[in-house]
Amino acid sequence: MRIVDIIERKRDGARLSRAELEALVLGYTRGEVPDYQASAWLMAVCLRGMTPDEVAELTQVMAGSGQQIDLSHLGRRVGDKHSTGGVGDKTTLVVAPLAAACGVAVGKMSGRGLGATGGTIDKMESIPGLRVDLTAREFLDQLEREGIVVSGQSVDLAPADGKLYALRDVTGTVPSIPLIASSVMSKKLAAGAQTIVLDVKVGSGAFMKEKPRARELAQMMADIGRAAGRQVTAFVTDMSQPLGYAVGNSIEVTEAIQSLAGHGPADVRELVTRLAGEMVFLAELEPTREAALARAEQALDGGAALEAFRRMVRAQGGDLAYVDDPGRFPRAALTESVAAPESGWLAAIDAGEIARAAIALGAGREQKGDRVDLAVGLLLRAKVGERVERGQELLEIHANDEGRLRQARALSQGAYRIVPEAVSPPPLIHEVFVA
Amino acid sequence: MRIVDIIERKRDGARLSRAELEALVLGYTRGEVPDYQASAWLMAVCLRGMTPDEVAELTQVMAGSGQQIDLSHLGRRVGDKHSTGGVGDKTTLVVAPLAAACGVAVGKMSGRGLGATGGTIDKMESIPGLRVDLTAREFLDQLEREGIVVSGQSVDLAPADGKLYALRDVTGTVPSIPLIASSVMSKKLAAGAQTIVLDVKVGSGAFMKEKPRARELAQMMADIGRAAGRQVTAFVTDMSQPLGYAVGNSIEVTEAIQSLAGHGPADVRELVTRLAGEMVFLAELEPTREAALARAEQALDGGAALEAFRRMVRAQGGDLAYVDDPGRFPRAALTESVAAPESGWLAAIDAGEIARAAIALGAGREQKGDRVDLAVGLLLRAKVGERVERGQELLEIHANDEGRLRQARALSQGAYRIVPEAVSPPPLIHEVFVA
Repeated sequence: MRIVDIIERKRDGARLSRAELEALVLGYTRGEVPDYQASAWLMAVCLRGMTPDEVAELTQVMAGSGQQIDLSHLGRRVGDKHSTGGVGDKTTLVVAPLAAACGVAVGKMSGRGLGATGGTIDKMESIPGLRVDLTAREFLDQLEREGIVVSGQSVDLAPADGKLYALRDVTGTVPSIPLIASSVMSKKLAAGAQTIVLDVKVGSGAFMKEKPRARELAQMMADIGRAAGRQVTAFVTDMSQPLGYAVGNSIEVTEAIQSLAGHGPADVRELVTRLAGEMVFLAELEPTREAALARAEQALDGGAALEAFRRMVRAQGGDLAYVDDPGRFPRAALTESVAAPESGWLAAIDAGEIARAAIALGAGREQKGDRVDLAVGLLLRAKVGERVERGQELLEIHANDEGRLRQARALSQGAYRIVPEAVSPPPLIHEVFVA
Repeated sequence: MRIVDIIERKRDGARLSRAELEALVLGYTRGEVPDYQASAWLMAVCLRGMTPDEVAELTQVMAGSGQQIDLSHLGRRVGDKHSTGGVGDKTTLVVAPLAAACGVAVGKMSGRGLGATGGTIDKMESIPGLRVDLTAREFLDQLEREGIVVSGQSVDLAPADGKLYALRDVTGTVPSIPLIASSVMSKKLAAGAQTIVLDVKVGSGAFMKEKPRARELAQMMADIGRAAGRQVTAFVTDMSQPLGYAVGNSIEVTEAIQSLAGHGPADVRELVTRLAGEMVFLAELEPTREAALARAEQALDGGAALEAFRRMVRAQGGDLAYVDDPGRFPRAALTESVAAPESGWLAAIDAGEIARAAIALGAGREQKGDRVDLAVGLLLRAKVGERVERGQELLEIHANDEGRLRQARALSQGAYRIVPEAVSPPPLIHEVFVA
């Protein structure tokens, strides 16, 4: 099988066979197929697309390119959760313990990622002592013993994805739905969970800016999971404004802890109970989605969710004093308020602009390896749809540098739109795809 | 200017600026842009295309990537001629001396190429002693002194094309009209001729199988030439059956010499007088195309064309005894006739099948560096439209190996279609694009 023939077939819009996908993807992972052939194929995929079953096979080939975790010996269905990432997205920190509190075994390998703030793993590192570098053995032991574990990727899951992603990044082949879907799902399949809940963010603060593409991605990922024998539900959720109030690292952990205690922002509460409820339902712990949702709400209000979080933090060596008193987190040196320039209704808090402000503060990373400042960030004081009066505080900026503070102020001010008539807040959950 | 941004713009269908094309193409030629970025861009061009003026700029950038030959000091317009290649295509060997005999200064750098037979340079090497490795100095001296020179590429014309072509070959990005057009024309522009006559072959024996694509290529190449201030005429000519009777190397040289003496096949005569006539007209040696064509016909019939060929061969050190008596060319060891299996009219001699037969005999090369057997080939005895009787000879195979002979026989037999009703031969010249 000649690689150039495979590239030509995709160039001409053909559906590649599994054997062709293996020759290309595994050959590239082994270093036998040169990167200039892989990038030509990636561009052809970008512009010609893939059929649903072709993407499913590509994903399975990628998942099989390295070690795959076998969770079957645990004797219970393990649940995983993934978000495509957004501004103020502290969901995993709440959903994982919440689902665990409801009886779901939650094992999640998470990344650091690029974005407005650090990834889940960075945020967890806010808690002194907390280890996010568990070995595969430690990961499985904790999952079995505590029923909850969230750690960095100790195993080289789907190495084909890592190699292809690095190539896509420098060849203009990132924004292809089949390539995004197979990238996410190859790691999920290799990580072994039987049930997977996906949160596809859509809006200015998300990678997917438009609903049709977000829907397409959600549907495709759900189909990929089903084709691989997993149970997957994919939510398409709003990222036109930040989620919750906190955007940063330790301030998001603080908000996550408040949410786990049942005192979080309304939108965070709605989202985490829906996602955790779905995990409960997929784990077959409740007969209906309604009952599963009720169980999640109860776990949040009754203290079980926070208790599961404490269990995870303790098991991973974290200092519980920070969980019990988030006031201990180090604070940024400078704090400044941004006030409403006029009275009216908040019509928009552009999540993309808030993301740029957070990056300006140093809360996120633009390149792999950049240092993340855990203390800085933005704390919203109002959300879209609320009435504000002139001079009222819109948000608080936490900075460690005067210049960065100035930048962040300018950027975040540009995020706001205040109108004279009342507006409704955007729906939080746009759509749900069940596979 | 980030290369990845340029790739993304082409991926999204934008028209690249000259500065962007320079950054990409010249950067790649200098080894600064990695091949995986160049190949992603090439695939995007394949699938998104280019605007006419974008292709013209790309071609100029490629032409300027290395040395460019300055012919302005000669004091007369130099004519060049290029064929996209076909089966039995000995045109250059006849057209160049014919145009020279009419007073056109003909300077052509030719390649070896891949195909059913060797390229013009290989065929010329049939004549013992004939040098095809002239230095740039020798090339210009002979052009000035003799008014005719055909030699290999001594100067690294348009090195960007050489590098990009090698990459296209292994990344499935060969069959893109803008990339083909810019590849051909970049070398023509760098070679310096003021007038260029192009012969775009179309049919089963050509790279372009279908007329719409051949027309598109011809039009695009003519436009590229005009945009660069050259006078270009592009012919689209038939390659559904081989040109003339001879397919091989020394047997094609023999047929070329016969044609130069005015005794060649009718189709060769028609094509070479039209092409040479156009060169005469573009060189402004005659006021009308009709007069230019008449001058070419006269040069063929009056012996001036053959004399110009002898002048070129002598100047390049070739043994004129072979020109005066082509019977001296070494003959293949084995000769076999293929007879008509039935009576009727010849409806098709598939040039693609004849090409495969020639390759099976060893007359061409499949990979760069393959040795070409100059003696082997196929000699047709009839052409499409002619009446044949059962048992009549259709063609003669010249081989140096029994196994290869068997293969060539099977392949060439499959090329023929005989029908019970009279059929017209295909038109030789489908279209002419003047820029």
